Amino acid sequence: MYPRAVMNLISHLSRLPGLGPKSAERLALHMVRAPSNEVLGLAKAVARLKDEVCTCSSCHNLADRDPCSICGAPDRDESVLCVVETPADLAALEAAGCYRGKYYVLYGALSPMEGMGPDELKPGDLLRRVRDRKVREVVIATNPTTEGEATADMLARLLERAEVQVTRLGYGMPVGGDLKYMDGLTLSRSLESRRKID
Amino acid sequence: MYPRAVMNLISHLSRLPGLGPKSAERLALHMVRAPSNEVLGLAKAVARLKDEVCTCSSCHNLADRDPCSICGAPDRDESVLCVVETPADLAALEAAGCYRGKYYVLYGALSPMEGMGPDELKPGDLLRRVRDRKVREVVIATNPTTEGEATADMLARLLERAEVQVTRLGYGMPVGGDLKYMDGLTLSRSLESRRKID
Repeated sequence: MYPRAVMNLISHLSRLPGLGPKSAERLALHMVRAPSNEVLGLAKAVARLKDEVCTCSSCHNLADRDPCSICGAPDRDESVLCVVETPADLAALEAAGCYRGKYYVLYGALSPMEGMGPDELKPGDLLRRVRDRKVREVVIATNPTTEGEATADMLARLLERAEVQVTRLGYGMPVGGDLKYMDGLTLSRSLESRRKID
Repeated sequence: MYPRAVMNLISHLSRLPGLGPKSAERLALHMVRAPSNEVLGLAKAVARLKDEVCTCSSCHNLADRDPCSICGAPDRDESVLCVVETPADLAALEAAGCYRGKYYVLYGALSPMEGMGPDELKPGDLLRRVRDRKVREVVIATNPTTEGEATADMLARLLERAEVQVTRLGYGMPVGGDLKYMDGLTLSRSLESRRKID
């Protein structure tokens, strides 16, 4: 239907998450008509990815160098460790600018359906990190989903072996949320975590 | 927030149509963790696009070689020419397998808001093609949208200069459609083009 090179690109693009065959077709047909320098720029950006991005050996986040800029920063509190599921979650916390401790990226959450068992999350690495760096508090910031909750429980049990305080992100209404559209579980958690007005 | 190479890829991806910054971020973070051969395969597929795809000088469709396989086919009726907006429209007609004539791709439709005036569609090329190849009928298969309709009208006026029959794709209910969900304009066109049952 299309030239070989276009069909080949469609087949590669449609393997990416969230891109169906129709979106892949649309993108490939856009690229074939787009200016050469834009298309070659994209090709180069993809090709360079694997060469230039490394994983920080300390927090496991994606980084330009090892240790990453957060782990290497002298002004960040090493005694607090925030555990997140993905680099995107870490980026969201950093963008909020409210946390000055260090991080640990799990790359996933417990999900037996997707083949993520406790071993895939390498909990031993986390325990070692907590013990070696004399961490005082671990903030578990996995997502408020079934998988994230199961992961938080598993990590909390695991961290009982280390002398460390384990906390979890607070539950409740998101800022700007609307009570009438909020689900019942969020509302009940919000009530449970109600606070006295000072 | 992310390594330089990841930010660079996000910026390239978010320039593609239909990909916002969040989708671009999701794709880039997927690629950075995907197997090397998949990612390099994608980079190569993008880079090869411009080298390997050409435009057929006769119908203007994307092609592996010039003339394309449809224009070069001896068993297709050269006296009927179907005018479409895009290579994707041509592909849809070919997939339906109901048309044995030749094609002409406009690469767009009249849309002053997007800077597509009559000159951008190069109507002179179409007129020359119709005259040179002794075309008997031109089927205008632009989309049933405001832009497609305006383009069809413009082309029909233009083709009055050549001795050729000009037709337009039929309007009506799509097969499998449901009357109660159909818009009024489609229903009225469907009524206008009603046929006697044989």
